[in-house]
Formats: sequence, structure tokens, C-alpha cells
Amino acid sequence: MKDIIIVGSGPAGHTAAIYSARAGLNTTLFEGWMAGGVAPGGQLTTTNEIENFPGFPEGMTGPELMVIIRKQSVKQGVEIFTETVESIDLSSRPFKIKTSSREMETAVLIVATGAIARRMGVPNEEKFWQKGISACAVCDGALPLFRNQPLVVIGGGDTAMEEAMHLSKFGSKIYVVHRRDELRASKAMQKRVLANDKIEILWNTVMLDVGGSDVLEYVLLKNIKTDKEFKQEVKGLFYAIGHTPNTAFLDGQLDLDDAGYILTNPGTTVTSIPGVYAAGDVQDKVYRQAITSAGTGCMASLEAAKYLEENPL
Amino acid sequence: MKDIIIVGSGPAGHTAAIYSARAGLNTTLFEGWMAGGVAPGGQLTTTNEIENFPGFPEGMTGPELMVIIRKQSVKQGVEIFTETVESIDLSSRPFKIKTSSREMETAVLIVATGAIARRMGVPNEEKFWQKGISACAVCDGALPLFRNQPLVVIGGGDTAMEEAMHLSKFGSKIYVVHRRDELRASKAMQKRVLANDKIEILWNTVMLDVGGSDVLEYVLLKNIKTDKEFKQEVKGLFYAIGHTPNTAFLDGQLDLDDAGYILTNPGTTVTSIPGVYAAGDVQDKVYRQAITSAGTGCMASLEAAKYLEENPL
Repeated sequence: MKDIIIVGSGPAGHTAAIYSARAGLNTTLFEGWMAGGVAPGGQLTTTNEIENFPGFPEGMTGPELMVIIRKQSVKQGVEIFTETVESIDLSSRPFKIKTSSREMETAVLIVATGAIARRMGVPNEEKFWQKGISACAVCDGALPLFRNQPLVVIGGGDTAMEEAMHLSKFGSKIYVVHRRDELRASKAMQKRVLANDKIEILWNTVMLDVGGSDVLEYVLLKNIKTDKEFKQEVKGLFYAIGHTPNTAFLDGQLDLDDAGYILTNPGTTVTSIPGVYAAGDVQDKVYRQAITSAGTGCMASLEAAKYLEENPL
Repeated sequence: MKDIIIVGSGPAGHTAAIYSARAGLNTTLFEGWMAGGVAPGGQLTTTNEIENFPGFPEGMTGPELMVIIRKQSVKQGVEIFTETVESIDLSSRPFKIKTSSREMETAVLIVATGAIARRMGVPNEEKFWQKGISACAVCDGALPLFRNQPLVVIGGGDTAMEEAMHLSKFGSKIYVVHRRDELRASKAMQKRVLANDKIEILWNTVMLDVGGSDVLEYVLLKNIKTDKEFKQEVKGLFYAIGHTPNTAFLDGQLDLDDAGYILTNPGTTVTSIPGVYAAGDVQDKVYRQAITSAGTGCMASLEAAKYLEENPL
């Protein structure tokens, strides 16, 4: 039996692992194998340039950062399996974890499986991912690639409006592509967006494809009222159509919110089951940054270690 | 008038600054001049080896980490003043910030002034600080210096007991020096400590001084019932006698808890005054790690930016 098992391999999972192993706990981390559709390391592995993780003034790529953090886990003595956890039994301690090739038991558990930004899945999307296409305006909007260039945001909710406002500080023109003739965003947010000269909303419009040579150069749009297709030249495309937290494997054993995120006591990583903690994007639909995820990973480890101290098996 | 002023220069302050400047906000940071008794960079500048900040598998010193993070702030365009903020007027926006040599106004404010670990102030303390003396067992306990060595913890509360339990995984013997004949710690915690063979509580005992050649080799103790002085050989001394948050300059304008920490809405950095946010150890008496501080610095910046967007001046 393990002292602690961590499911997930992004900044939250590995920070939890580093703290746990360093605290002398027998620590195992399941990094998954294309779990949630992304490589070990999580969503950051789909990110090119990171300029806002403190400690790296020159910036680095997402995969580079995750290779380094993983190395730190290994150095601290974390045992890592490149297997996806398929199911978990939280009905009693020790908790039981199952992958396609093994079953393990653990005294405490940290879930840090992240969330995946939704994409449209248009034909040439993969080709231009991170070559103009992003799912995080806060992360990527300030990159040189997008400065003084026309950009497009897909979505109609508050997040999409926030991203458009944020991007308007960098881009020359921001198109918001929205399939309906009204926004879901709050009235206050709509007002600010509509008052922003740089932002233009393309109503009743859907995106059919993206294109360019090496990097993104245009999006192919269609007005669904007129059925007219047209190319819009842009250097950046930002998806703001929501995220899907990776919680299906929990099979309803932890309390989730309506969108599927794990509910934690505010300001902690405590879940609805004693001895189970949640860190990173799987429990955060507000901040969603690598550094905030890492912070909650540390919190989860400290809380888990304290629980284990008080409730040994 | 500035968009955003940040007071404090630890991981929380600089992460807030990096995010704010990168979001296109006109950002100023006051790093202080020996504010709270420590150099710009905060408490980390009093730490030697850091092994648990994700991204640095080989570890680094506290001052090194803070030099790098400060460089990142500067690179992102943050204006930094090496002056201590003496007073703040939060009675109306724009908020007014005053140092010994300038006054400035800001639309939003982030307080990240940290907390200082209390020390005993014995004669030779400074000489052996970080050469055997630490104020954070979680941070430093796992260092090679302390492995299989006798260690001493000063304090009698829950934190002191937690630190003793944590250190018992690394040290050969843990002495807890406590000036009274009973502990303030919870009964459950006392029970665990008393059941731990490696831990010995030295009741009715105070520390008079520390000593050694290059690094700490002993503490000079005194039993206050018998008045007997004696040397106890130890390689490590861990203070667990509380922290003092740096909030005096706020002069009661923000809601604080009984211990002087800034109260924030749980899970956020929102304080009692709209447009004022608090990040890092000045609002955290639970986790207190560099990485958790950095996480809340990011949160404060995102919340401040959103507030400014919705409440421009």
C-alpha cells in the first residue's frame, strides 16, 4: 500500500508529488498515457511559449517546463507510471486505483487530472494548433506573434468577452465569432465589449475551417442566416467555448459541480471524501494558470500529509 | 495615476506584477528597503536551499530564486521602487501610497507584504541563521544537513508539534524546547508527539544561546525550575513560535484576523475593500510556501485586472 497516490501529471500533480516525496511519504504518480487526449504533462504540453511562470525570465515552452518539473519529481523519489487510471474505488480506505495493467492501494489520494479546453475540431485545426490557435488568451495573448494583428475569438459567454477585451490590448482588431444573434455574456460585459472600437462581433456566424501556410493566416467563416462563406484574415484564433474537466473516471464518487469540476472547500483542496484531495484545473474554473495549479498541488500535499498523520492506516 | 500598485517583493508580489504587466496594465511594485527586517525578495532571501519550487530540479538558494523572478518582472515592464511603503490611504479610489520619498495614486492595489517568522533573538542567532537555524521545517527539514542528526524545535503549539513530527522522519532525535510544563497544542497532536520515540520534550526549558564553529553545533538551554544550564548538541534548530504578518502600515484600513493577517474571501484574494487584493503570506497562515504565494499572486492580478476592467477610473 502506498502512502499517497497522485493521479495527473501537470503542475498540480507534480508539485503535490514533489512535496509529498520530500515529506518522506511513499509517493506514486500516474501520469497517464494520452489521458484526456493530451500527453503526460497535461495541457501545458499543448502550449508553446510560457512567459508568466515565475522563475523563467526568458520564457520556455510548455513541454520544456513539464520535462523539468517531472525530473524534479523523479529526483525527490516519486514513482511514476505512464498509465491512465481507469477507475477508482473510494468506498473505503485504503482507496483502490486501477489502470489497464495494475491495481494499487493508497492511504490518501490526490486527484489532479486537469481539464481540457474544448476545440471546434475543424479540419485543419491540429495543423495550426499553437501556430496561431490557442485556448487561453491570458496565457498567449501578449506573445509577439499576436501584437497589432487581427485576431478572432470563438464563443459568446463571459469568458469569450473577457478574452476579447484582454486581446484588444494587443491585437489590431478582434473579431468575435458567435453562432447566435445574441450573447450569453452578462449585460455589463456585453456593454463593455460593444463599446470597444477594436472589437467586432460577427453574429450568426460559424467557423468551418482554418488555413495558412506555416502559421495561421485566415479562418473560413459562414453566416448561417445568409449561408454565405467568407475568409477572414487573422493571425490568431482563441477558443473560448469552455473546458471539460477530466472527472469521468471518478464515476460520481466525489461531489462535482454542474460542469463536472470537483467541489473543494473554498481555499482548500478538501473534497467530499476524507483523505481525497483535488488540485489544479480539475477543481478550478476561474484562474486556470500553471502557477495557480502548482500552488494548489502544494496545498493538497500538505493537507494530505496532515490527514495521513492524523488518520494512519 | 497607476493602473496597479503592488506592495511587496516576494513570490506573491512579483507573480502579481508579472501577470499585471503582461496584461498591459501600468504596473508599479514597491519592493521595500529592509521592510519587515528582510531584504527585497522577502522571507525567501533568508533561506539557503530550496528544493521544492517546481521548475528547479537541482534546487537553488532563496536569494537566487528571487533575483530571477525580479528579473522576470523587469522584463515584463514592471516599474520597481526600492522604497518601503509607510502609509496607505484606502478611504477612496484612487488609493494613495506614500513612501519616505514619494506619493503615488493607483486604481487598484495588491498587498503582498508577507509575514516574518518570529525568532528568539539569542546572542549568536544571526551568526548561525541558515547554518543550522531555520523557521520552516517543511521547507528545510529534508536537507542533507539535518539527516540522521539531533535537532531541536522551539515552541509548544500545534505548529511546533507538526514540525517535530515532520522532522522525526529525517533527524535521529528531536528535542522540543518548551518553557512551560504543558503544551498549547491540541490533545490529539500531543498524543501523537508523546507516542513518537524520536521526540523528547524538554519541559520548563528556555534557550539562552546557540553555538558552534562554522555551523550550528549546540544550543545552550536552561531549566527554569532548577535554574540549571546545559548544552544540547544539535545540528538543527527550528523556530515554531509563530509569524508576524506585515500589516501595521495598513493602520486598520483592511479587515484583519486576530493575529493580524489580512482577511480574504476564502479561495480568492478579495479583501474587505473593493479594488484591494491580498496575496501571499500576509493572508496565509496555513500553507506559507513560495509556490502557494506565487499562486495567490497570480490570482490577485487576475482579480485586480477584472475589477479594473469593470470599474475604470
